Amino acid sequence: MIGFGVVGQGLMRLLSERGEEMEARLGGKLEIVKIAVRDTSRKREASVDPGILTDSIDEILDDPSIQIVVELAGGVDEPAAWMRRALESGKHIVTANKAVIAEKGEELIALAEEKHRFLLFEAAVAGGIPILRVLREALTGDRIVRLHGIVNGTSNYILSRMASANLAFEPALREAQLKGFAEADPSLDINGGDACHKLAILARLAFLADIEPSAIPTQGIDIVSARDMEFALDFGYVIKPLAIGARLNGALDLRVHPALVPVDSHLAHIHGATNAIYLEGEHLGPVMFSGEGAGAYPTAVSVAGDLFEVARAILSGSDDRATPPYGVPLRALKKLPQLPAEELKTPFYLRLTVEDDAGVLADVASALARHRVSIETILQTVDDEEGIATIVLLTHEAFEHAVGAAVSELSRHSALREQPVLLRIVR
Amino acid sequence: MIGFGVVGQGLMRLLSERGEEMEARLGGKLEIVKIAVRDTSRKREASVDPGILTDSIDEILDDPSIQIVVELAGGVDEPAAWMRRALESGKHIVTANKAVIAEKGEELIALAEEKHRFLLFEAAVAGGIPILRVLREALTGDRIVRLHGIVNGTSNYILSRMASANLAFEPALREAQLKGFAEADPSLDINGGDACHKLAILARLAFLADIEPSAIPTQGIDIVSARDMEFALDFGYVIKPLAIGARLNGALDLRVHPALVPVDSHLAHIHGATNAIYLEGEHLGPVMFSGEGAGAYPTAVSVAGDLFEVARAILSGSDDRATPPYGVPLRALKKLPQLPAEELKTPFYLRLTVEDDAGVLADVASALARHRVSIETILQTVDDEEGIATIVLLTHEAFEHAVGAAVSELSRHSALREQPVLLRIVR
Repeated sequence: MIGFGVVGQGLMRLLSERGEEMEARLGGKLEIVKIAVRDTSRKREASVDPGILTDSIDEILDDPSIQIVVELAGGVDEPAAWMRRALESGKHIVTANKAVIAEKGEELIALAEEKHRFLLFEAAVAGGIPILRVLREALTGDRIVRLHGIVNGTSNYILSRMASANLAFEPALREAQLKGFAEADPSLDINGGDACHKLAILARLAFLADIEPSAIPTQGIDIVSARDMEFALDFGYVIKPLAIGARLNGALDLRVHPALVPVDSHLAHIHGATNAIYLEGEHLGPVMFSGEGAGAYPTAVSVAGDLFEVARAILSGSDDRATPPYGVPLRALKKLPQLPAEELKTPFYLRLTVEDDAGVLADVASALARHRVSIETILQTVDDEEGIATIVLLTHEAFEHAVGAAVSELSRHSALREQPVLLRIVR
Repeated sequence: MIGFGVVGQGLMRLLSERGEEMEARLGGKLEIVKIAVRDTSRKREASVDPGILTDSIDEILDDPSIQIVVELAGGVDEPAAWMRRALESGKHIVTANKAVIAEKGEELIALAEEKHRFLLFEAAVAGGIPILRVLREALTGDRIVRLHGIVNGTSNYILSRMASANLAFEPALREAQLKGFAEADPSLDINGGDACHKLAILARLAFLADIEPSAIPTQGIDIVSARDMEFALDFGYVIKPLAIGARLNGALDLRVHPALVPVDSHLAHIHGATNAIYLEGEHLGPVMFSGEGAGAYPTAVSVAGDLFEVARAILSGSDDRATPPYGVPLRALKKLPQLPAEELKTPFYLRLTVEDDAGVLADVASALARHRVSIETILQTVDDEEGIATIVLLTHEAFEHAVGAAVSELSRHSALREQPVLLRIVR
């Protein structure tokens, strides 16, 4: 094992608590022989034989008796280098590191395939939900056409608290940090970067497509305010941090952004730090998986599942015929074009804060009409004291570029008091 | 393939539509070489080479070139006999037949283990939800302590329609039959027998316990009326057809019955013919899986997933080291005692229809008090014209035997006009 933080300690506990059952499952024994840590003298909650702790990763990578490396250290370049060495020397790898798989996955997986070694990373996406295994093995009879996920627990926690406790963004974020959901630097959670990594991995498996995270349009949740939550609810929607993938006209529509979903939809009920993945196949109707997305134990359970798979293969002598991580060899992944944002048609939510002047509402309506964006519902409220009006509207399905052009026009309107807020609606 | 109804035809379509991807996944080809049907001349929707149809099952079982038998015929004794012969002659088996696994599983699985053959039955429980694979492989790092399922789509459809359209039981059942959810003889759906079979299979996997379906207390949904739906909703609950399994004091609490669940609970949002499985582990928080529970394609997708697993093992030369169907060898399943119903403590819903006489409410309250059942909420409504009062109450947690004794006393009360309705509340 490389790294021995909360997940590593959770894993050790799972393995030690259930030794007997594990042997019944495997017909053999898993033994943790070395754990590489930065500081071997540091006090840890888990009781561990100090003899197996080392501060030298080489002791693991150069030990030919070690068959599986479990990477739980985090980072990108360093772990990628360790994984490369481990694979070169014939070791299998289990990791919880989504960044390394999203960004260096191609190279590492090619190497794993060349060396006929396992490289498994169930814990990298949606913690305790075994969604990668489900996509890789269980649903392979069908062709997935749509995938909606809430895959970042921190953003879902923040938006849920903004909705349920009427908090503003900042206090909701601080609450998430106090509860241990958000990192000290939560920027990757909030700006959608983490969800983008996870969507890239999910989409490779679901669509058998070769996807770069950098090609996925990604929007953070910090544009959402408590007022938008309230207005959305008035219209029958809640705002959720979504990762979306869909096949459309031979292309892929991949996006990460907050969106309005109907209050009675599947994902609307996913609260707090919970993660969920919603799938539709060509033949299979909606399937949904939900559960804890992060935390020591959910992550450790997923790592253990992978570890057992590798161990079973080793014990049955078939570990040189590992299933490729994406279910098909890397070269079978197709380069599917990303659907251009302008071709995307979806209904929108738009909130404008304007001076309460006669004629502004008419200007808004005509700007939208000029771009052939038709309005489904519109609501204007006025704050008489401040002389400010808020116009909130939902559009019918409209092209993203058309709505964008109308909003860009409106954002130059002299009566505008705040930047317009534009959110997508996903039904 | 034995049997070529809607599932078989769906499977054939999945396999033929996705030949190229299948080969990329398997590194080899799956070929359907024989399909045994009752009547080879019958017209079928799927286009199929008539040369592969046969009315002789022996042609499949005696053909040494056939490696996998897919049993989709239904029944118990006949398919059990075919499976025995197939395993004896070294073939692997994939089936969607829950009855044969629930009732003859022990013998067949023992044989499969002895012969080192696969016997897979993902499609037998919860259609398109790969819950067996998840329990067998993905969540093995944790110890499952609780499992709540909606595993019979017909009963969930009926109860959902009773709640949403205020239908009585009979019209809701007829609607389910018209929509093709319920069988012409829907008794196994309605009396809980089908859910009991599925719970037995799920519980073997989740709790590694040796479970006989006949030992699972099972109650049908036909005791629920539209009035109960309304009263439940007034109290903040909906009524769902549940299959429940839990570890408790070294025993297992297994039950199939309709129950009240809070309107904001996970299972309350599972409507219509959808199935769902809710799990809690010792370390893992709630995980939930939902999707279509039956139908040609969901079932065919699960059969295909199993088929691919066997095919991968054959192609990698490791099919003589099949994972046992329950994840551990049959002999490792433990005989865990079923928690006696009398030890079960749960809150209850009780509805009494009585003559509107002074003193009846007091009699009800004192009967419950005598058996130390304490009331949480009570509601009495009176129909003046008929001179009938309805008393509905929720109890605090109470022993099943205590509530049973109180209700049995009350059912002999002279003012009683209908049999009392007693339902469990699951929070």
